[in-house]
Amino acid sequence: MSAPGTAVSPSPDTLVLLDIGAGVATLTLNRPQARNALSREMMLALQTRLDAVAADPEVKVVVLAAAGPVFCAGHDLKELRAGKGHDHHLATFRQCARLMTTIVKLRQPVIAKVHAMATAAGCQLVASCDLAVAAETASFATPGVNIGLFCSTPAVAVSRAVPAKLAMEMLLTGDAIDAATAAAAGLVNRVVPAAELDATVAGLAARIAAKSPRILTLGKETFYRQREMDLEDAYAYTAEVMALNMGLHDAGEGIDAFLGKRPPSWQGR
Amino acid sequence: MSAPGTAVSPSPDTLVLLDIGAGVATLTLNRPQARNALSREMMLALQTRLDAVAADPEVKVVVLAAAGPVFCAGHDLKELRAGKGHDHHLATFRQCARLMTTIVKLRQPVIAKVHAMATAAGCQLVASCDLAVAAETASFATPGVNIGLFCSTPAVAVSRAVPAKLAMEMLLTGDAIDAATAAAAGLVNRVVPAAELDATVAGLAARIAAKSPRILTLGKETFYRQREMDLEDAYAYTAEVMALNMGLHDAGEGIDAFLGKRPPSWQGR
Amino acid sequence: MSAPGTAVSPSPDTLVLLDIGAGVATLTLNRPQARNALSREMMLALQTRLDAVAADPEVKVVVLAAAGPVFCAGHDLKELRAGKGHDHHLATFRQCARLMTTIVKLRQPVIAKVHAMATAAGCQLVASCDLAVAAETASFATPGVNIGLFCSTPAVAVSRAVPAKLAMEMLLTGDAIDAATAAAAGLVNRVVPAAELDATVAGLAARIAAKSPRILTLGKETFYRQREMDLEDAYAYTAEVMALNMGLHDAGEGIDAFLGKRPPSWQGR
Repeated sequence: MSAPGTAVSPSPDTLVLLDIGAGVATLTLNRPQARNALSREMMLALQTRLDAVAADPEVKVVVLAAAGPVFCAGHDLKELRAGKGHDHHLATFRQCARLMTTIVKLRQPVIAKVHAMATAAGCQLVASCDLAVAAETASFATPGVNIGLFCSTPAVAVSRAVPAKLAMEMLLTGDAIDAATAAAAGLVNRVVPAAELDATVAGLAARIAAKSPRILTLGKETFYRQREMDLEDAYAYTAEVMALNMGLHDAGEGIDAFLGKRPPSWQGR
Repeated sequence: MSAPGTAVSPSPDTLVLLDIGAGVATLTLNRPQARNALSREMMLALQTRLDAVAADPEVKVVVLAAAGPVFCAGHDLKELRAGKGHDHHLATFRQCARLMTTIVKLRQPVIAKVHAMATAAGCQLVASCDLAVAAETASFATPGVNIGLFCSTPAVAVSRAVPAKLAMEMLLTGDAIDAATAAAAGLVNRVVPAAELDATVAGLAARIAAKSPRILTLGKETFYRQREMDLEDAYAYTAEVMALNMGLHDAGEGIDAFLGKRPPSWQGR
Repeated sequence: MSAPGTAVSPSPDTLVLLDIGAGVATLTLNRPQARNALSREMMLALQTRLDAVAADPEVKVVVLAAAGPVFCAGHDLKELRAGKGHDHHLATFRQCARLMTTIVKLRQPVIAKVHAMATAAGCQLVASCDLAVAAETASFATPGVNIGLFCSTPAVAVSRAVPAKLAMEMLLTGDAIDAATAAAAGLVNRVVPAAELDATVAGLAARIAAKSPRILTLGKETFYRQREMDLEDAYAYTAEVMALNMGLHDAGEGIDAFLGKRPPSWQGR
């Protein structure tokens, strides 16, 4: 119950659902009536959830899903248009960029589970996840150009996932690509019939959750860091990481288990 | 009529044709008897045309086409071989690099319309355009290695468009790839039967020409700049661009039109 | 015959076979009973062979092949596990990184001929070669995550060859991809029936060996260097390379031969 004069807001608990089971946290965008548009409140709710799962030692893999007929339609245009002034808008786009960067830097692998259309910052969410599985009913677009607001931040994530000319086609035309095209181009890892989406993602998440969480965290961080280096620096850096990795409990345990033909027993994160 | 002692050259107006209609400028390489080879004169003619369309407020999209049985065969080998000395050759290759960079930096989107073989700097032209549509009769090669002149400048554009191992195969073998292979690898956006090439490119150009030219220019520039940054810098930069974009007339107009379910009325570039 | 008290080691001549013919050096990993695992001795043998072929003026192209049921299973886990301390492990991973970098910097083009499974540093070997041809019986994986040792150094090569989300899937799941998937993603250039692997690689190697070795060396080095530059720097650099290339004997000879419709006569490296 809110005090007089206090605006009643949907709780973050409602805007982004959280379900944890067997080491897998599923975050579900849950503003279906608004096509899961990323209002500032919605972004804050997702940010809060991500920060929470990052801190939860039980969570080994994160699945990003969505409820309703649209995966995510990007920014909340009414809210964006109501915003006044450069500083206000800049704060909004920085909040969004921080959200996307949080996914990339999250210690757990993140799998996008895309059942429907993902557009603009919604497409960026998918591109920002480590992995993505799409249903045949999914589609992807960066249509900001159609409303005079070029998808410049989505371009960051999309252009790092797919070939340049496809990214440019999506950005300049605003046209959607279907799930099969997205898979062929590398925007998603695979496409499955809609009826198989849940099971496919659950299986993928479970397989990854069975790995050492400490090693997944080390590997994910290393992957994105080395990718921005030149070859010599990347090898100097990753050779250090490999040596560090060899000094961790789970490497010794994993190798011994493999050589002994027994399952490993990981130490946790 | 030329004065005595003055060499008669084909006019730039003849070497590269220009046709403007409905916001789309079509530049047509028109030295078919020389396979549209990029002599210094030809490069100057194309550069002049590009500079002119960049300055023309009526032009919203550029199509780069070619006349004759070959799209473009690259540098003019006789002229190149007749050139004497490192400085002379360097000037030629810098002129070519400037031409390619002009396409990338042009304020309008550029679509390559490739009906036939594009080799060496001709292949680089296609790779340098923002978008490309190929007829089934098109093919692509970087065959400089066959004549002892490795396609090092074409490699810049090609290696930014297709996977590394395909780029290396093209460069080391000199072998041509067909249009379907080019499309699968990202060198062109799509392949169509030769009879549909004109209509496909016209349709694509018209769809893009219907967007706000100011927003297309902002978006194109941002795309290529952010691509060369690391993730943090790219997001810091593009968040600023998005905020700036929100302050432009066409963003307000575009969003209002979208929310009001009416067509937008763009302000121009 | 070894002196008393001296360990008898397999000779590098045995660990990595060398066969040279018609300008093509074939290096064959030949520790099949150990799945061609990259023990320190095996890495040294391969490094020694690569250094030797680099210095051999007769060698124009290198093929990297392997004997036995596995192409290469990556590091030697028993040896790795027996190693003590960070410095020891760091030396091993630096040795491996140097080996991979040697392939990238080798003056001759290197073609991987992959008849079977290539995992971890074995997959990295394939990714590090300029070109790769796979038999339908080949497969590729970076399964270090399964043994608590994330494939961080393989990620350097793999992430520069295939789209990010596929690289991440291979790294996070450890699952193998088949040859057709590897070809579609750019990890290998093509897939052929196992019975055609030898002939396909021999044909590809022969076609490249017929080019000017001096020009191949210049082009390969330029390709990898320009790829790490931004567009302006890449063009400034490659324009210089092209001008330098024009000053070399084999460019003049190659162009004159082409214009004169006769085969060129290269000068050698």
